[in-house]
Amino acid sequence: MPSPNRLNFSPGPGALPQEVLAQASEAIIQAPGTNQSVLGISHRTDWFKNIVSELEAGFRSLLSIPPDYHVLFLQGGSSLQFSMVPMLLLRGTGLTAEYLRTGYWSSKSIPDARLEGEVEVLYDGESSHFNRLPGQDELLHDPSAAYFHYISNETVEGLQFHTLPGLDTVARVCDMSSDFMTAPLDVRNYSLIYAHAQKNLGPSGVTIVILKAGLLTKAPDRIPSMLDYRNHVEMGSIYNTPPVFAIYVTLLVARWLKDSVGGLEKMAAINARKALALYGIMDRHPSFFRLHAADKKDRSLMNLAFHLPTPALEQAFLEQSAAAGFYGLEGHRSLGGLRASLYNSVTEEDVNELLEFMDDFRTRHA
Amino acid sequence: MPSPNRLNFSPGPGALPQEVLAQASEAIIQAPGTNQSVLGISHRTDWFKNIVSELEAGFRSLLSIPPDYHVLFLQGGSSLQFSMVPMLLLRGTGLTAEYLRTGYWSSKSIPDARLEGEVEVLYDGESSHFNRLPGQDELLHDPSAAYFHYISNETVEGLQFHTLPGLDTVARVCDMSSDFMTAPLDVRNYSLIYAHAQKNLGPSGVTIVILKAGLLTKAPDRIPSMLDYRNHVEMGSIYNTPPVFAIYVTLLVARWLKDSVGGLEKMAAINARKALALYGIMDRHPSFFRLHAADKKDRSLMNLAFHLPTPALEQAFLEQSAAAGFYGLEGHRSLGGLRASLYNSVTEEDVNELLEFMDDFRTRHA
Repeated sequence: MPSPNRLNFSPGPGALPQEVLAQASEAIIQAPGTNQSVLGISHRTDWFKNIVSELEAGFRSLLSIPPDYHVLFLQGGSSLQFSMVPMLLLRGTGLTAEYLRTGYWSSKSIPDARLEGEVEVLYDGESSHFNRLPGQDELLHDPSAAYFHYISNETVEGLQFHTLPGLDTVARVCDMSSDFMTAPLDVRNYSLIYAHAQKNLGPSGVTIVILKAGLLTKAPDRIPSMLDYRNHVEMGSIYNTPPVFAIYVTLLVARWLKDSVGGLEKMAAINARKALALYGIMDRHPSFFRLHAADKKDRSLMNLAFHLPTPALEQAFLEQSAAAGFYGLEGHRSLGGLRASLYNSVTEEDVNELLEFMDDFRTRHA
Repeated sequence: MPSPNRLNFSPGPGALPQEVLAQASEAIIQAPGTNQSVLGISHRTDWFKNIVSELEAGFRSLLSIPPDYHVLFLQGGSSLQFSMVPMLLLRGTGLTAEYLRTGYWSSKSIPDARLEGEVEVLYDGESSHFNRLPGQDELLHDPSAAYFHYISNETVEGLQFHTLPGLDTVARVCDMSSDFMTAPLDVRNYSLIYAHAQKNLGPSGVTIVILKAGLLTKAPDRIPSMLDYRNHVEMGSIYNTPPVFAIYVTLLVARWLKDSVGGLEKMAAINARKALALYGIMDRHPSFFRLHAADKKDRSLMNLAFHLPTPALEQAFLEQSAAAGFYGLEGHRSLGGLRASLYNSVTEEDVNELLEFMDDFRTRHA
C-alpha cells in the first residue's frame, strides 16, 4: 500500500495537500502562537480574528476580488445557499429567477428558490440524462429577471461550463462548489458566488460566499438571522460560533495555493494537465472507458464520470483499484459507474499512477 | 509554561480531553481503518456512516434516549435552531410560543421565533441585569401554548436551572448548548433538546438535536430544505455534506465519556466537585470575587462569571493568569470582568491550579 493520503480521487470531502495535513495535525495538539489546541480556542480571540482576516486577504489576493465585494465564511454548505440566495434576491421582488437544471446538484438548488418566488428553468437536461450543457443560443434569457443561477461544474455528471452563460445586465449567481479556486476567475462577472470548501479549499463545514456589497441594500426584512448575509457581513463572518477548525485548515490551503503552488494560474495549468492526461486514455479507448459527458466542450476538469462495458467490470475495477491503494473512485449513487475527481490537491504523480492502473486494467480485461 | 492543552477555561470552543486531541491529531494523518486523512473521506462511505451510527448509539446509551426520539447532527449552531424550532412548532399554528429571557443567549433566541408567530416572553431578566433566574411561581404558563422554550445554562452570566421549568402538558424545548452531557438527564421531560458541540461535546461546527418523533407529523410545508428536520431524519444526518471531522471528534469525546470517565453520573460528580471548589473560594472572599449570579440556587456548574473590585485588578488578573499559562478567563464582552468555564474536559487538577492562583492573587492584591 502507498503511504497515507496518496491516490485520493474522492468526490468530496476530498484530498488535501500533505503539508496542510501535517500542519493541521500539529495544530490539533498546539495551534501556532498559542499553548492550546486549535479545537480549544475561542472564536472571539484575536488569534482567531487574525486567522479570518488572513484568509479573507488571501482569497482577495489569489482571486483579485474587488473591494466592493464582501467575502464571507459560513456554515450549512451549498444547500443552505440554495435558500439564502432567493431570500435575498427573489423574495418580494415580483420578478422571476432563472435557473439552469444541468445535473444532480443544480436540480437540488431549484425547490428552495420556488419557496421565495417565481422560478423559470431555462434549460432542463433530464431528458438527455444530464450528459451535456446548454449553449448560450439555447437559453432565452429575460432581461428583467431577478437573477440568473447556474452551477459551474456538475460534480456528479462531470460537466463544466467553459464559457460564461447569462446576460451581463442580470445578476449572475454561481454555485462554484466543485471548481472554485481551481483557476483564475473574473469576480466582476458575478453578483454572488458560493462554494463549499470540501472539494478544493479545505475540509467540510465551511462555505465561502463572495457577494457584491450593493446587493444587500435591497435585502427584504424577516429573513431568519442565520440566513441573512447582512448579519454575517456586520460581524465579519463571526456572527455565531464559526467552524474554527475548518476555517483554519482553509487558511492553510490558501497559503499552500499562494506559496507552494504559486497562485491560480499555475494551479490551473496543473489541473489542465491532470485532466487532459486522463481524457487522453479515455479518448484512445472510448468503447472501454465510456464518458458520461457527451460533448468534449462540456468536459469537467474536476470530475470524470464514466462507465465500463459491464457492471462486473466496474466492480472489478473498484475492487482492484482499492487493493492497489486508490481511493474514492465509485460513481455517484444516482449514476453508478466510476468517477475520478481531480481536485487541486490531487497530484500529477497520483494521476499518472491512475493512468497506469487504468491502462493495465484495460489491457487485462478488454 | 505548562504542557499544551492544560488550564483551558475558555467559554467555548473549549477544552477537549488530551486523549481525544491525540486521537484527532493522528486521524488527520490517517483515519483508523483507512489509508486517508479523516479530512479526505467522503461522507457517503461506509466508514463515515459507521461513525455517525456509533455516535448516535453512544449518545442513546449515555443519556438513555427513548426509541421514539430522533438524534440528529446538524450544522449552523444553536443560532440556526433559533429558526428551525419555531418553523416546526409555531408556524401556522395560530398559537403562542412561550420564551424565557434569562440572559444574553436566550435573548438571541426570541427574534427568530417572532418571525414565525406570536411569542410571549414569560420572564425578562434585563432589568435585574440577568443576575437571577425566575422561580416556577413567577411563570404564568398558558396550557395551550405551542411550546415553551428556555435555555438550561446561561453561559455568559453563569446561571443554570437546577429545577425543571414549564408544564408537563406543553412541549418543552431546551437549548442545552452549554450543559448538555454534563450530567444525567431525563429526555422524556423534553419534546426537543438542542446543543452545539463546542462546550462539552467536541469542536465547533456540529449541533446535536434530540426530538420526539411525533413532532414531525405536524410539520408545516414550505420550510427551507436545510431547516426542515424531516430531511435530516430521512437521511440519517447525512442530508448534505456534514461536518465530517467535527462529528468524528464528537464520537471520540463520547467514547471518552463512556470508557474513560465511566458515564454521566461520574461526569456529574466530577463537574460538581470542580464548581464547588471554585465557588468555595469565592464565598470565602465575596467582596474580592464578586459573582454575577445573585442567588446560590441559580449558580451554574459550568460558567462562573465574576468581577474583581476594580477594572485594574481584573486587568492584572488576566495578565498574570495568562503569564502563568491559564487560558480563556476573560468575561464576555457584554458583561466584562472575568469568567471561568468548567466544561467536562477541564480537569480537577486544572481547577486546583486555578484555585491556587486565585488565592495567591487575592492575597497579593486584597
